[in-house]
Parts: sequence; structure tokens; C-alpha cells
Amino acid sequence: MTHLDTIVALASPAGAGAIAVIRVSGPEAIAICAPLFRSIHGKDLAKQKTHTIHLGHIMDGERIIDEVLVSLFKGTNSYTGEPTVEISCHGSSYIQQEIIQLLLRSGCRAAQAGEFTLRSFINGKMDLSQAEAVADLIASDNAASHQIAMQQMRGGFSSEIAKLREELLNFASLIELELDFAEEDVEFADRTQFQELVTRITKVLKRLIDSFATGNVIKNGIPVAIVGEPNVGKSTLLNALLNEERAIVSDIAGTTRDTIEDELTIGGIGFRFIDTAGIRETVDVIEGLGIKKTFEKIGQAQVVMYLFDSLTALKSPSVLRTSPSKGEKLRNVIVEIEKIKNQFPLKPLVIIANKVDQLEESEIEQLKTAIPDLHLLSAKKNIGVDALKAKMLDFVNTGALRNDETIVTNSRHYDALLKALEEIEKVQYGINTDLPSDLMAIDIKQALYHFGEITGQVTNDELLGNIFANFCIGK
Amino acid sequence: MTHLDTIVALASPAGAGAIAVIRVSGPEAIAICAPLFRSIHGKDLAKQKTHTIHLGHIMDGERIIDEVLVSLFKGTNSYTGEPTVEISCHGSSYIQQEIIQLLLRSGCRAAQAGEFTLRSFINGKMDLSQAEAVADLIASDNAASHQIAMQQMRGGFSSEIAKLREELLNFASLIELELDFAEEDVEFADRTQFQELVTRITKVLKRLIDSFATGNVIKNGIPVAIVGEPNVGKSTLLNALLNEERAIVSDIAGTTRDTIEDELTIGGIGFRFIDTAGIRETVDVIEGLGIKKTFEKIGQAQVVMYLFDSLTALKSPSVLRTSPSKGEKLRNVIVEIEKIKNQFPLKPLVIIANKVDQLEESEIEQLKTAIPDLHLLSAKKNIGVDALKAKMLDFVNTGALRNDETIVTNSRHYDALLKALEEIEKVQYGINTDLPSDLMAIDIKQALYHFGEITGQVTNDELLGNIFANFCIGK
Repeated sequence: MTHLDTIVALASPAGAGAIAVIRVSGPEAIAICAPLFRSIHGKDLAKQKTHTIHLGHIMDGERIIDEVLVSLFKGTNSYTGEPTVEISCHGSSYIQQEIIQLLLRSGCRAAQAGEFTLRSFINGKMDLSQAEAVADLIASDNAASHQIAMQQMRGGFSSEIAKLREELLNFASLIELELDFAEEDVEFADRTQFQELVTRITKVLKRLIDSFATGNVIKNGIPVAIVGEPNVGKSTLLNALLNEERAIVSDIAGTTRDTIEDELTIGGIGFRFIDTAGIRETVDVIEGLGIKKTFEKIGQAQVVMYLFDSLTALKSPSVLRTSPSKGEKLRNVIVEIEKIKNQFPLKPLVIIANKVDQLEESEIEQLKTAIPDLHLLSAKKNIGVDALKAKMLDFVNTGALRNDETIVTNSRHYDALLKALEEIEKVQYGINTDLPSDLMAIDIKQALYHFGEITGQVTNDELLGNIFANFCIGK
Repeated sequence: MTHLDTIVALASPAGAGAIAVIRVSGPEAIAICAPLFRSIHGKDLAKQKTHTIHLGHIMDGERIIDEVLVSLFKGTNSYTGEPTVEISCHGSSYIQQEIIQLLLRSGCRAAQAGEFTLRSFINGKMDLSQAEAVADLIASDNAASHQIAMQQMRGGFSSEIAKLREELLNFASLIELELDFAEEDVEFADRTQFQELVTRITKVLKRLIDSFATGNVIKNGIPVAIVGEPNVGKSTLLNALLNEERAIVSDIAGTTRDTIEDELTIGGIGFRFIDTAGIRETVDVIEGLGIKKTFEKIGQAQVVMYLFDSLTALKSPSVLRTSPSKGEKLRNVIVEIEKIKNQFPLKPLVIIANKVDQLEESEIEQLKTAIPDLHLLSAKKNIGVDALKAKMLDFVNTGALRNDETIVTNSRHYDALLKALEEIEKVQYGINTDLPSDLMAIDIKQALYHFGEITGQVTNDELLGNIFANFCIGK
């Protein structure tokens, strides 16, 4: 990857729309675009001011490809920190292709995934963690993940790291200095201040590392296992939760081929609902496997919803010989709940009785007595839905989000933080055991290295390649 | 539809991408956007010059929604002819929605399909046929349809109509004047010049009306029926034609449920390939229906390709008892070709012998003797593919395209032109029969009306509604 050439890519989403935007960036961006652009006012594009917009035609020789608006960014005053031209054309795929082909013939190279943002990083417009946040921002689909990505892109995370790194670097150079005067046994680095800094760094690192669990869950959606037999109203419940929320629902293939996950946003937080088959006791081998799967899925979830049909549980009319009698059915429910509690004693569990609109008052009391922590619901009649939403949001630790605290969502950062903490703990051990300066300096350097990995002060081509390969082309 | 309010819509294609563009247009566009935008340089958006770009944040109160670039268009110097703000944000669906929702809460209305272009028409930035060409331009997926749409958008078609309309209007007013002096029997309108104009208009109208057949075919892709049994290599042929062409291929449901059409672009011209089941003679009722369908499809096509497997035709090894013997198979091919020629004597027909790479030289000679106008092909070995492409392009009347002649592709225009011609022919009859001026004036007015329908000088809300309903939202 060299940033001496000029790159081009479609920046707006693929497909037909009203307009499409083609981005050209690099030292020759303006020199390449100017001759292809015929201003309707006869102006020379190259002579126009930065941050101005111009109407005209993109010409392939004498053939008009399209009437376009061209946005001009001169010098380093652009997203990439290089001269940039953005061409807004009519959004037909054909026109997009024709213009991109023309630019490729005229000396541009097709941009690789994330290459505009890579240049932005190389040209010092943003550090590496900010660049990574750009991809997160584009992928964000709810308020929480959006806020985390935005905060990281604005440098909240990396400025904290960079500040600590600088302080540590300062001490490191003082300790290096001591080495030069080793025979004189002087201490340039104030050990009390140094201890204070190491304590502070340890605290920050631990907080950031702890935030990863929350961060990762918020980024990917909080997994919620719904345990319940097929006919208890699972899909009605999901629809009820969805109702009146501006949310994104989709069926995506889950971790196992037979699992369908529904994603939806409640109160700005993404949730992933994992359907399970329920855990009816059985002697059947095949059904036994089903129960094992259900327990696996519960294990992966952060929250468990146990949903049962209160009507069937209480009123089961036993029209079929094989149907359990009234009391038996409710007992089954209680047994199943106990099983989940025994297996996952620490996992938040919401027990939901559905279809309560069809019960008598006395029956509801009967249920409440049998299952004290019961959530009453009628997904169909929209009873208890808002209360359920509130309960789910309570399970999410949104304290950090509300307080604008930095949350780590990137596993690369998490790894670097873990490694940095390891080194800092070695430094702490060195302070405690009065380790000679030269040995301590090595641990400090290692910690600095891992800090630098996050912000991109320490980097290599392979790392950059991996990071930017996850971007879309055009960004 | 009022154009006193301010409208907003996503202008780039839906979905996630590097960037998305949200367009705001209307008298309050800048007043609505300025308070939501916090410039990184602390500049007031409302005080900036037209056609400038500004970096900053879209704020929902104190919450940052996104870092964006805002393009400013003041006064009437914009696509719509109204103050316009275009917001380039990060291309996440969530961010797009958040910004649009914020704008809706701040006083914008969600734009209807094509409403930006409708305003452009209402504000006199383009006439109606130009506005219609915008939709065609976005839908264009090959060089030919793109060129026609671009020419129409640039006013090639409507300026011709508008010029004729103006000349006719001039004569109409002279004839009206004669009515005022009816008793004096004067002729202000020179009848020789008038005759000359009517002749000219008739000629232009006839040319434009004739161009519709070509234009429509170019716009929608030229339908080509491929006649051939399932195993003769139809899909290999399509792939070979596709090869090395930057083309768009898709499987779309055809006019009948059981027909799959392949679309591809050859030499900048779109072709629609209609697969047929072949026309083997049979006594079977079901198969007889199949033949009927094949003939129907041939009837709809502009070009017919008859494809057969030369190897089977000549070498059929008759391993199965029911297989026809060698000579019999080739005779069948000849019979089938004759049937098509008899049924459709005027339809261009290409007879293609596939798999010729597996034949001996003598066998090829034998085939050529049996079928003189044979096209030899090996789709697999890429023999005869380029020649076939050239042959197909020959069938297309691209003369008009090359000469930049106006081509009508819009059925609304076609209808108006037909009606205008009808009225002009009445006027011609009036001239021939010395019809009184007052009666002639009525026919001229009708012709003027139909001309005006094309350019939009005569219009109504229902017509506009129909036209712009076919646009995408955001255009």
C-alpha cells in the first residue's frame, strides 16, 4: 500500500438511487478530474477554491457521461488529508461504472477496502483506534453501539490511552537517564510519583478491560434466550416488543444452523433473541438432544426468558388422551423453571406467563402463589409488554453509557490492554521489589509498546492490512 | 403537493456504505439545518456562501449524531431551484434514520417519490420531458438507453417540440386575428408559409412516432427468442456471449410464469434472452401446448435464434431405441427451421449449429449444404461467438443512435405525439378544403395542447402525480 497514487471508489452504497457519490483521493486527484469535468460556467476546476461545489458534465472525450456536482477539497483539508474530489452523479449503476472506468483509464487506481480511512490515519488525521471506530460507526444499528463508536471516533478512548502513555514515556526517559548515571546511584524518577502513576494506569486499564464484556455485548446485541414450547406465543411476544419501536428486525442465521435469531432494538439497545425448543423432560433420545441444545443456548445468553402459556397450564382440557391433566401441566412448568435455576443460578431469568388476559382473577392469584417472581403478560392484548421492556433494560448495565464513560468494544484493543496490564503489573512488582532501573525499563518499554498498538504509534503493514480489510470499499 | 414546505429524503441508495447523502430542499432548508449543525470552525451555516462545503456535527440537542459534510445551495441555484442542503453522513442505516428523524422533528416533511425533480419542473429548472428523462437516466443500464435518456434530459427532444409549438402558436395567433376581422376577409397568416410549417410538423411528428418502436426496444432491451431443446447448449451460449463483456446479467421472471429471461449487454445495447422449449413435432396434447407457447414467444421477440446441437444432429448414436437415427435428427432440425420461417417470414432468424468443434471438416460441409445460412458455433471453445455478437448488433438499427437523432422512448410522449399528428392532419385537411379560419383555429389549438403535454406547458396534478410516482424517493 503506497499513498503516492490516486485512488477512486464508489462511496455511496451500491445499487441504484437518486444520486451516487464517487470519491477520488491522492496527489493527482484534481489534476486527473479537472480535464474530465466541463463546468457549465466554463470554469477550470483546478483553479477553484477548496470546499466549493461545481455543476457540470463528466466528459469521455466529447461524449457526456453525466451531469454532476463536483465537490473540491484541496491541500490536506479533506477526510484523507490529501487532495480529494467527490463526484455526485445520477445514481444509475451504469453511470457509476462508466465514471469509475473513465477515472481508472485516466490514472486512478481502484481503492482497496478502507483505503481512504487508512490514508487518513497515515496522514495523521486520526489515530488507529479512531480509524477503527469509523467502521464500527458505519456498522452501528442502535443508539448504544452508535454512541460507543462515536465516542471512540472522537478520540475519547485513545486520548485517555495516549495521555497515560505520554506520562509513562516521561518516566521511562527519566529512568533511562538513571542508567547513564548508574554508577552514581541517582534517582531522577521520583519513585512516589512513579508509584502513583502506575497505580493510576493499573486502575484505568482494569476499568477498560472490564468494560469490554459490556461493550462487546452492546456492540453485537444482548443475547436473550427464549425458552418455551412452540405454541406458547414466542413470535407474538417478539412482535409485541417490536411494536411502536423504530427497530430493525431481521432473521439471521444463528450460531447453529437450526437457530433463527431475531434482532430488535429496545430503548436504543440491541437485543438478539435466541429461540430454543424448550426443555420438556423426556426419555426420547432425540428430544434429549434437544434439551442439551437448549441448555447450550441458555449458556450463551446474557438473559433468559422462560415463556409459558398460562391458559394451557391451568385450563388444559385434556381432549387428547396424551395431554397432561391441568395440575400436571403447571407442575411441569415449575419443574422446568427449577431446572434452569439450578443449571444457571447467576443468570438473570424472567418467568413470563402469557395469555393472562384469558384468565380469571382467582387463577392469576393461583399462578402467582405457585411462581412468586412471575411476569404477567398478554402479548396479544399488549398487557405487561412495557413492563417487560423496562425489566430487560434493567439487566443492561447502561450506567457506563449514561456517564459517557469509555467502553472498549474492539477485541484488538482488549488484547493490547490485557498485555499492557500484564507489563504494568511487572513494573509494579519491580517497584515493590526494588528492581534495578535497567530491568524495570524493559517492562515499561513493553507496556508503552502495547499502548502504542492501540493508538497506532506502533504498527506494521500486516496489522494495518488486517484492520482495514474489514472496512467497506469507498471508506 | 405544495412547494411551500421543506422536504427531506435519503438521496443515496438505501443500505450501508461509506457515506450516505440526505437532501433537504425548500424555503426553510437552511433555516432548519443551520441550528442542527455545529461547524468545527464555529461558523454559522446560514451565513456561508452558496456552493460551499462545511465540516461539522449534526447535533440532537447536546448529543452528536454524526460528523458530517454539509453542502450548501442558496437561492434558486440548486437542482430544485430552491434553497437546498445536502448532508453527507457516515453510511450506517441507523445514522441515516436518526438524521432524517431529527429533520422531520425540526420542521421538514418526508419527500414523496420524485418530489425534488417535481420541484425542479415547477420552478422552471427543466421541462416535463427533461424531468421524465431523469428517471430514465437512473434506470439506464447500458450505453444506448443511457444516451437516449441523457439526450432527452439535456432537452434535445423537448427543444425540438417546443420550437415547432412556438411556430404553430405564432400562426394560431395570426389566424385568431383574422377572426376579429372576419367581415373584411383578410388573411394575416400566409397560407403558403402555413402549409410549409404544417408539412414540416407532420414530417417531424412521423419521424418521432416511428422512432418509438426502436426507442422502446433499446430502453427495455431487445427481446431475442432462443429456440432449442434443453440440452443443446443454451446457457453455455449465454455465458459465452456474456464473457469479457462488462454486462449486467440477471434472472428476472418473464411475462409468463414459466419463462426465465436473461438480460445482458452486448456492445452497449441491452438484450433480453427469452428461453423457449423448442418446437419438436408431437401428437402429445401437453407438448402441443409447449409449441404454441414457443410460437407466442417468438412472436414477441425482435430476433430469433434457432440453436441446435450439431453433434447430435449428425452423430446421434441411437443408444436408446426411442432416439431418432442420424439423418432423421438433422431432417427434424430443417423441418423446424422451415416452420419458423413460414410462421414469421419477416423476423430476423439466426440458425446456429453448436458444438462444431467436435465435428470433422466434411461434416461441417455437409451441414452447410443442408442449411445454407448456418452460423457455426462452439460456445464452449469460444468459436464463432464474436461473429454472432456482430450479427446481433447488425439487427439493431443503431443508425439513429449514432447520428444523435431524437428517439422517443416514453409512451406518454408517444401518445401525445400520435394525438398531435391526428390534429395536424385535420389542420392539413382544413388547408386543403379551404376550411374557415374559426374551425381551423380549433384544430390548431388541440395540436398545441398535445405539444404542451409533452413539455409540461399543459399539465395537471393527476398527470404530474402519475409521472413522479415512478421516481425513487430522494430524486
